[in-house]
Amino acid sequence: MLYLVGLGLGDETDITLKGLEVVKKSARVYLEAYTSILLVDKTILESYYGREVILADREMVESSSDEILEGADTTDVAFLVVGDPFGATTHTDLVLRAREKSIPVRTVPNASIMSAIGATGLQLYHFGQTVSMVFFTDTWRPASFYDRIRENRSIGLHTLVLLDIKVKEQTVENIVMNRKIFEPPRYMTVGQCASQMLEIEEEKKEGVYDRESLAVGAARVGGADEKFVAGTLEELCGADEELGAPLHSLVLLGTATHELEHEFVREFALDKDNWDRIWKEKYAEKR
Amino acid sequence: MLYLVGLGLGDETDITLKGLEVVKKSARVYLEAYTSILLVDKTILESYYGREVILADREMVESSSDEILEGADTTDVAFLVVGDPFGATTHTDLVLRAREKSIPVRTVPNASIMSAIGATGLQLYHFGQTVSMVFFTDTWRPASFYDRIRENRSIGLHTLVLLDIKVKEQTVENIVMNRKIFEPPRYMTVGQCASQMLEIEEEKKEGVYDRESLAVGAARVGGADEKFVAGTLEELCGADEELGAPLHSLVLLGTATHELEHEFVREFALDKDNWDRIWKEKYAEKR
Repeated sequence: MLYLVGLGLGDETDITLKGLEVVKKSARVYLEAYTSILLVDKTILESYYGREVILADREMVESSSDEILEGADTTDVAFLVVGDPFGATTHTDLVLRAREKSIPVRTVPNASIMSAIGATGLQLYHFGQTVSMVFFTDTWRPASFYDRIRENRSIGLHTLVLLDIKVKEQTVENIVMNRKIFEPPRYMTVGQCASQMLEIEEEKKEGVYDRESLAVGAARVGGADEKFVAGTLEELCGADEELGAPLHSLVLLGTATHELEHEFVREFALDKDNWDRIWKEKYAEKR
Repeated sequence: MLYLVGLGLGDETDITLKGLEVVKKSARVYLEAYTSILLVDKTILESYYGREVILADREMVESSSDEILEGADTTDVAFLVVGDPFGATTHTDLVLRAREKSIPVRTVPNASIMSAIGATGLQLYHFGQTVSMVFFTDTWRPASFYDRIRENRSIGLHTLVLLDIKVKEQTVENIVMNRKIFEPPRYMTVGQCASQMLEIEEEKKEGVYDRESLAVGAARVGGADEKFVAGTLEELCGADEELGAPLHSLVLLGTATHELEHEFVREFALDKDNWDRIWKEKYAEKR
């Protein structure tokens, strides 16, 4: 049996009892370590589980899945995923390859940022499609998120923006030289995300949002020190210090909001007067 | 401290280790038992936790929250919620009341149907706003879901439909007579949901969807015997036996689909030829 086990969002204690039982009984335990990260190190997981954990990077999951699936028709293999196993698309692929080999698959769900973001006080019923934001480079500034946000906002919905992480990245030089030297991991912050969003709006000028659009920055959701900061996109550009360590996410508000959401979220506002003013002018009961 | 603890979706072993620790140390443990249910009984939870669990019905949470919050400024109180604590809006309200009393609040997230539904193979990035479907009566047939689905479909997105549950309901006669006699619980099935959806389309005739629209029925998501059935809305009207016991949910597909979703979901199709034909005609790469 191939088990896809969600680890939740915080630390080693966010695994479910069902998930832990699977980890303990499996012949091999893999940890998917490139679409998201826990707030704790692999060695902490290993000592908590009492098991060796094999790090599975993108290359292994996408190109060497046979290795992961080996023997899973007769023994148990656990594939651990931060959050919920079906948050990222890569794992759908792994299940399809297991199916081809007639390997049975079971999933142990867990918290995902896509539902845990409800802790902002924004109602999950009011979210449209989730988008991703990647680190821009001089030559690569993908802006499809802009069209997705436009679609969400056209029907009044909030947008959860998931932020890029870069682990085990090589410089072009090291790739060319085939040197397995990896850059330090990078995690996009709310400030970087808000500023890239404004950059694209300034370029396109289609008014999908602006500097005064309300948003919530979230850090370490589900962890003991989770932190939320609410403000305009402009205010959030400077809120990284307030938010602290990774992982960060951002929610851009839609206008289909409920008074209860306002009451809950304003508690996190950097400038409550500003928040109230903009809410009243542009958001309250606009649906 | 008030702890909102998610229980996940299946049975007593779906609580996280962090959540179980909270349950064990809390002075009182409440179980919210009206927006969703676990697949196991309260007594099983009690023996698994080694703790008494107090059932909190809607009346208690909405009108007697003071009782729940009593003493939570100096001791720990656990409020258990099936799925993730922020899936339903009621609990936002409880947090706001705790804030008023300066009671600190912490959340222990867990799997929610809103993310676990990814186990259908439909990508969470392609979901629009979630809607609810209530049991229609002769005089009450709320159809706002129809407009929300239109919005989602207008931008190509899938819609998760959460199905009504009725627990501790009284007949009108028993309410009038003030008799605390409760009807047996009822859980809406995928068949009932699909048929109510078609009923409203026939009434409104606005072409938001039709009998041939593709959908996925899901039962007991996250449980050991979770079951998915894919087909047209018409086919799903008759799929309750195939799906089995509650809880059920339904996903109406949008057209912004990916070939990988097709490959994954067709495995669940009641009639694979029909599924392939409709997919090819109306869904494949329509975005």
